Amino acid sequence: MESAIPAHLQTARTRHRRVGDDYAPPYPSFVARHKPSVTRVVMAYFGIQSRGALPAGAERALARLASDFADADGPSHWDRASYIDEAGFTNVVTVAYWDERQKFDRWFPAMRERWTGEQRTNDGFGTFIEALYPSVEGYETLFSSLGRPEGVAVLADGMSGEVLEHAYWGGMRDRIPLSQTSEMAASGSARAIRDGARIRIVPQDNLCLIRSGQDWGDTEAAERKMYLGDVEPVLREGMDFLRDQGRAIGCYANRYMTVVGPDGATAEKSYGMSWWKSLSALERWAESHPTHVRIFGAAMKYLSTLGPAAKLRLYHEVTVARADEQLFEYVDCHPQTGMLNAVQTAEMA
Amino acid sequence: MESAIPAHLQTARTRHRRVGDDYAPPYPSFVARHKPSVTRVVMAYFGIQSRGALPAGAERALARLASDFADADGPSHWDRASYIDEAGFTNVVTVAYWDERQKFDRWFPAMRERWTGEQRTNDGFGTFIEALYPSVEGYETLFSSLGRPEGVAVLADGMSGEVLEHAYWGGMRDRIPLSQTSEMAASGSARAIRDGARIRIVPQDNLCLIRSGQDWGDTEAAERKMYLGDVEPVLREGMDFLRDQGRAIGCYANRYMTVVGPDGATAEKSYGMSWWKSLSALERWAESHPTHVRIFGAAMKYLSTLGPAAKLRLYHEVTVARADEQLFEYVDCHPQTGMLNAVQTAEMA
Repeated sequence: MESAIPAHLQTARTRHRRVGDDYAPPYPSFVARHKPSVTRVVMAYFGIQSRGALPAGAERALARLASDFADADGPSHWDRASYIDEAGFTNVVTVAYWDERQKFDRWFPAMRERWTGEQRTNDGFGTFIEALYPSVEGYETLFSSLGRPEGVAVLADGMSGEVLEHAYWGGMRDRIPLSQTSEMAASGSARAIRDGARIRIVPQDNLCLIRSGQDWGDTEAAERKMYLGDVEPVLREGMDFLRDQGRAIGCYANRYMTVVGPDGATAEKSYGMSWWKSLSALERWAESHPTHVRIFGAAMKYLSTLGPAAKLRLYHEVTVARADEQLFEYVDCHPQTGMLNAVQTAEMA
Repeated sequence: MESAIPAHLQTARTRHRRVGDDYAPPYPSFVARHKPSVTRVVMAYFGIQSRGALPAGAERALARLASDFADADGPSHWDRASYIDEAGFTNVVTVAYWDERQKFDRWFPAMRERWTGEQRTNDGFGTFIEALYPSVEGYETLFSSLGRPEGVAVLADGMSGEVLEHAYWGGMRDRIPLSQTSEMAASGSARAIRDGARIRIVPQDNLCLIRSGQDWGDTEAAERKMYLGDVEPVLREGMDFLRDQGRAIGCYANRYMTVVGPDGATAEKSYGMSWWKSLSALERWAESHPTHVRIFGAAMKYLSTLGPAAKLRLYHEVTVARADEQLFEYVDCHPQTGMLNAVQTAEMA
């Protein structure tokens, strides 16, 4: 049993972990381990939004994005997912990960110009960029099994052994290295700056992002039936609640998406990503909303019972970012898109 | 909104509360407020155990106990409850509360001699005493409504206004004043000393007791049906789990009892009392066992929806006691009684 916080990020605590050293989780879980030389990562979500099927210009933009990812300074890993949002728009979200900020900084400006800047080719579709540049102290990962990393974990040097800080409420916070010394409370408030068609969101401190995924590709008959019949509908109910009613509890936006493979076909993988006013707002929802409590209970029971025999793979990554570790830009998107929900009005630039 | 920790017990923290100052609970709850002059209370459980109906000698002992309570140094409040335990024995448990340790110390020795000592009259029944003498820093209370205090709260000067620290996992700990500076971890282990027929348990530090009650006497048709039909069966399932399988998770004993009125008739009130190795063991069960998670979810939903209109009354008191704040004695009780479960063998005195 090891701590989710790697040795080189352990500091003298001013805040305690929620469980004692004698805590024993009921099933194993694992976290991604970067090389100690990695100090900061980039998680950049590039979105395209259109009513109905994507127009040809949007398809071309997506193809160009994929080709640009292959540049020398491109991301170490990326994936793509899609869904239809609450306003009935199709959204295709491509997320790319870097573990060297310098590479991203060399790669990004030209891409940004084409995606949300002067060189954009938006014609009948919207585009957005939602990017975080957290230090490694500002996020955590969790995996129910080894062997198939997802998201930022694909960049890691490897996976941990069984970690202590999971399977209890508060484990998410306890896995983030900053929690050793910081409450990570929200401070300030987001505002919007309109610059022609582009709306930039100037964010608040300690905004929180969760990407939480499931991969049922390896499940066989009985387990697949259980996941698709019993678990997924409850998960969807929770995701729908956040999408439709999340604002009142500090969830600015939630996207429950299906992963799309390189060939454009949907994979047997999905993930939810949501933007939160704070880690504590996410905690409160997770711990009290009936759908998530049921999901947590089902996962506890499922993983405690099946253990290593489970073929369903669950993972998540949760990030708390300072204001200067965030970038949000929206062009021609409807007003309920992403962090546009965090602001009431847009000032003129 | 006020803190569950009264101003005169607030200290410089070395440990943080689990929620921030901006936390807003979804429904109101209240705690008992003692006069600041109260520094310590006594909670003394006097048990009688017999196979089948109580023999006449047991009934006489119970009557004598009630009459002794009326002494000048007797308790400020007491009540009585009964249940049939896992071994099929009838148990009648009378709990008495003092808020002056000196009065208890004057009252108790004679009573103790008659209950578990040389002057006992046990003939076909067992007796036990389970008593805690916590400082006011060592316990907390919680009530879903005002106007009918139960347990130690009957001794209080009054009730608080709406408190902040509730309706989230960890609220119980955050309401105990000691949590400001202490992890309240279990330390040491209990042992038994046999002295003739009497077995004394010499306890460990930071043992935890919860008394958690419900009063459905005021509910009318629809609410009563909901409580008895939907809530009580799930509660009972959780109580049965603790009684039958609690040992593996640190619950030494659980009694789910029906309150008995002064006339001997059962009231529309019940409470569960359980002895735990530590507060954290209680937390882990409460947060992860499906029955309790369901109960918590149901209560959240119920109280959030009905609010002040709810007629069901819920309360609890949770105590963490040092070894020198505890007394356990058992005579002629079966070996699964109370804290006898905390020890494997009994040494000879």
